[in-house]
Amino acid sequence: MRILLVGAGGVGSAVVSIAARRHFFEHMVVADSQQGRAARAVAAADDPRFSAIALDASDRAQVEAALREHRCDVLFNAVDPRFTMPLFEAALAVGAHYLDMAMSLSRPHPREPYRRPGVKLGDEQFALDGEWRAKGRLALVGMGVEPGLADVFARYAADHLFSRIDEVGVRDGSNLVVEGYDFAPTFSIWTTIEECLNPPVVWEDGEWRTTEPFSEPEVFDFPAGIGPVECVNVEHEEVLLVPRWIPARRVTFKYGLGQEFIGVLKTLHKLGLDSAEKIRVGGAEVAPRDLVAASLPDPATLGDRMHGKTCAGTWVKGTGKDGRPREVYLYHVVDNAWSMREYGAQAVVWQTAIHPVVALELVASGVWKGEGVLGPEAFDAVPFLDLLQEYGSPWDIRETPRQAA
Amino acid sequence: MRILLVGAGGVGSAVVSIAARRHFFEHMVVADSQQGRAARAVAAADDPRFSAIALDASDRAQVEAALREHRCDVLFNAVDPRFTMPLFEAALAVGAHYLDMAMSLSRPHPREPYRRPGVKLGDEQFALDGEWRAKGRLALVGMGVEPGLADVFARYAADHLFSRIDEVGVRDGSNLVVEGYDFAPTFSIWTTIEECLNPPVVWEDGEWRTTEPFSEPEVFDFPAGIGPVECVNVEHEEVLLVPRWIPARRVTFKYGLGQEFIGVLKTLHKLGLDSAEKIRVGGAEVAPRDLVAASLPDPATLGDRMHGKTCAGTWVKGTGKDGRPREVYLYHVVDNAWSMREYGAQAVVWQTAIHPVVALELVASGVWKGEGVLGPEAFDAVPFLDLLQEYGSPWDIRETPRQAA
Repeated sequence: MRILLVGAGGVGSAVVSIAARRHFFEHMVVADSQQGRAARAVAAADDPRFSAIALDASDRAQVEAALREHRCDVLFNAVDPRFTMPLFEAALAVGAHYLDMAMSLSRPHPREPYRRPGVKLGDEQFALDGEWRAKGRLALVGMGVEPGLADVFARYAADHLFSRIDEVGVRDGSNLVVEGYDFAPTFSIWTTIEECLNPPVVWEDGEWRTTEPFSEPEVFDFPAGIGPVECVNVEHEEVLLVPRWIPARRVTFKYGLGQEFIGVLKTLHKLGLDSAEKIRVGGAEVAPRDLVAASLPDPATLGDRMHGKTCAGTWVKGTGKDGRPREVYLYHVVDNAWSMREYGAQAVVWQTAIHPVVALELVASGVWKGEGVLGPEAFDAVPFLDLLQEYGSPWDIRETPRQAA
Repeated sequence: MRILLVGAGGVGSAVVSIAARRHFFEHMVVADSQQGRAARAVAAADDPRFSAIALDASDRAQVEAALREHRCDVLFNAVDPRFTMPLFEAALAVGAHYLDMAMSLSRPHPREPYRRPGVKLGDEQFALDGEWRAKGRLALVGMGVEPGLADVFARYAADHLFSRIDEVGVRDGSNLVVEGYDFAPTFSIWTTIEECLNPPVVWEDGEWRTTEPFSEPEVFDFPAGIGPVECVNVEHEEVLLVPRWIPARRVTFKYGLGQEFIGVLKTLHKLGLDSAEKIRVGGAEVAPRDLVAASLPDPATLGDRMHGKTCAGTWVKGTGKDGRPREVYLYHVVDNAWSMREYGAQAVVWQTAIHPVVALELVASGVWKGEGVLGPEAFDAVPFLDLLQEYGSPWDIRETPRQAA
C-alpha cells in the first residue's frame, strides 16, 4: 500500500508517528500546503518510507497528479472538511481508495433550518457511491475517532451485545485543561465552530430532523475519573452514518462542551465571527472564522501545557441478547501525559489519528474490504477493536447495572 | 474660518449636516481615506462651502499638504484615535488650530496595569503643550459629547452650582434598540473595545489609579424615560481632563454597557479578538479588532432600524453654594427618531457631532480663545450651553432632593 496523506497538521503529524511503528504500508507521501510542515512531520519519523511534498488540497488536478506521480493507491484525507470534496473526487478520478475523518459539509434547510435537514453531512459523497462501486474502489468515510471508533462501537454493540437497539448516543467529553491561556480549544476551532453552530441533526423513528444549536443539554458521567460534563446536541457524522447500517430507533451525538465554550461559540455567532465567507477588511479579504482560528493558539502545539484525559464513546440502550433491558457505554480514553510521552502528540489529536491508521492496516491486510462509499459500521468491529488493543490503546465497556425489579 | 474635517464616517457626516445650517465658517474641506464617502457627505449638504478630498489620516506629510493647499486654519479630527497623533502633529507643524473628540491613546503600565496608569490618554498631546503655546495656537482636545459636553457640564457645576466638589461622575446610558440584528453596537466597536478593555482610570485624592476592566458596577437611573442601566468603569478622557482644571476629590466615568455587551467584550478579549495588532491569516495580515468591526454593521447606517434615546451627562456631588450637600445630574438626551428626522443621523453619532461644531463656532467668534493644549473645561461653560440651546438641542439638570434631616 502506498498512501498519499493530505494534511500535516496536528492529526496528520500524529498519523505519521503512529504509522511509523507499523509495517502494513510500503510508502507514505506526506502532503501539506506548507511543505515545511510536511517535512517536519517526516523528519520526526526518521523512516525512509515517508517523504514530504507541497500540495494544495483545494486543487483537484494537483491532487490527481500527486496520486499518479507517487503511485499511491490510497488517499488519506487529514485536512479540514472544506477540502473533502476535491480530495474525494481526485481519488475517484485516479482510481485510488480513499479515507477521511470528516465528511462533506452540510447546508441548512433554506426555510426550516432548525426542523429539517437541508444537504446533510456526507450527502455529496454518498451521491457518488455508484461511481465508486463501478470502479471497484473503497471510500471509507468518517474513520477518525468520532466519527470512526464511535461507529465501530455501534456496530460491535449491534452484533454482540444487543438484540434490539433503542438509542445509539455518541458522547464525547474530557477534563483537559490548558495552562497559561485564557481560552485555548483542544481541537480545531474551525471544525468545532462548523459542527457546533450548524443545526444539530438527530435520527428518530426512521428520519433525520434538526434542532436549534446546543439543544437537549444533558449531564453525562464520563469514566476514568473525568466525571460529569454538560453535553449538548451537535451536528456530527455518526448520526448520518449509523442508521444506514444499524437499525436503531434514535441516534444522537452530544459533545461535552461545557458552559464557557458554549458561551464563546454563541458570542462568535452573534457577531458573525463564525462565518467562513470572506469579508473585506481594509485592503484584505478574510473569513472571520479563519481569523478566529489564527488568533487562537494551534491546538496541536498545546500538548506540553495540557493535562487531563479525553474520552470518546458510544452509549447504547436497548434489549440485550437475553431479551432484557441493557445499557452500555463503550469508550476509549487517552491520557494527555501518556500520548505526549509515547508519541509527542496531545490527546485529542492523537485519539483522532490512531483509528484511521488501524483501519488502513485492516484494508491493507484484506481483513476489511469493500467497494463504494462506506462508513466504519459497514465492517466487522471485532478485528478493529482487537488491532486497536494490539496498538497499545485499550477500549472498555461500562455496563449500567439493571435496576432491581 | 477654513476647516479641514478629517473623517467622513458617521460622526464626520453628521458634522457636515449640522455645520451646513450655521454661518460661522467660510469653507469646510471634508477628507476621508475613501473619497466617495467624503463626496457623499458633501453632496448631502448641497452647499458650496463644502468640498471633498481623499486623504490618508495616518500620513502626516499628506495632511500638512492638504492644510496648506486648502489654506485651512483649523484641523477637525473626526477619525478614530489611532490617527490622533499624526493629525495633531500635522496641525502643529502647519500652525493650524486643532480639535478632536478622542485623545491620544494610552498604554497600560508594564507591571501593574490594573493598579497604576502607564501612558495615559492624552499624555502624548499634553507633552506638546509648550509647542502649541509657543506657536500661539489652540489644540482643543476631547471636544465631542463624552469627552466634551460632559466636561463643559463639570465646569458649569464648578462655577455655578458648587462651592466644593466631592465627585464628578460622567454617566452614559441609553435604551436604544437596533431591530433586525442579533448584535449591533450603536457606536464604533473599534473605539468601544479600546475604551472598555483598557484598564479603566479613576481620579482619587490627587492621583490617577487604574482598575480591572468593568469594575465597580453600579445601577444609574437615567432621565427621559431611559431608566436604570448597569454602568461600569471605563477608560475615558474626562477622568484625565477634569482634574487638570476643576478641583474634585474623585472623577469617574461609567458606561451603561449592559450585561450582554459586557459579555461580548469579555469574550472578544478572551479570544484575543480585541487586539489591534495585525496577525497572519492565510496570505493576509489583519488586526482582529478591524475584522470584528468589519463583520458588524456600520453603526452610522443603523439609524433607520434604531429606536430609543441616548443620554450623556455628568453627575456631580459636593457642597452647594449655600454650604449644604448637593447632588445634580446635568444631562443631554437625543431621541433617535428626532435626529433621524431632523438630520438623517442616528442619535449616538449625532450627539457626538454637534458639540464640536458648537465649540468651533465659539472659537470662530472669539468667545472661546486660548493657546496650548486645552480641554473643554478650560473655557466658560455658559456661552457653550446657551449656543447649544440655540442649535435646538436642549440640556437639563436633575436635582437630587435633599434627604429630610
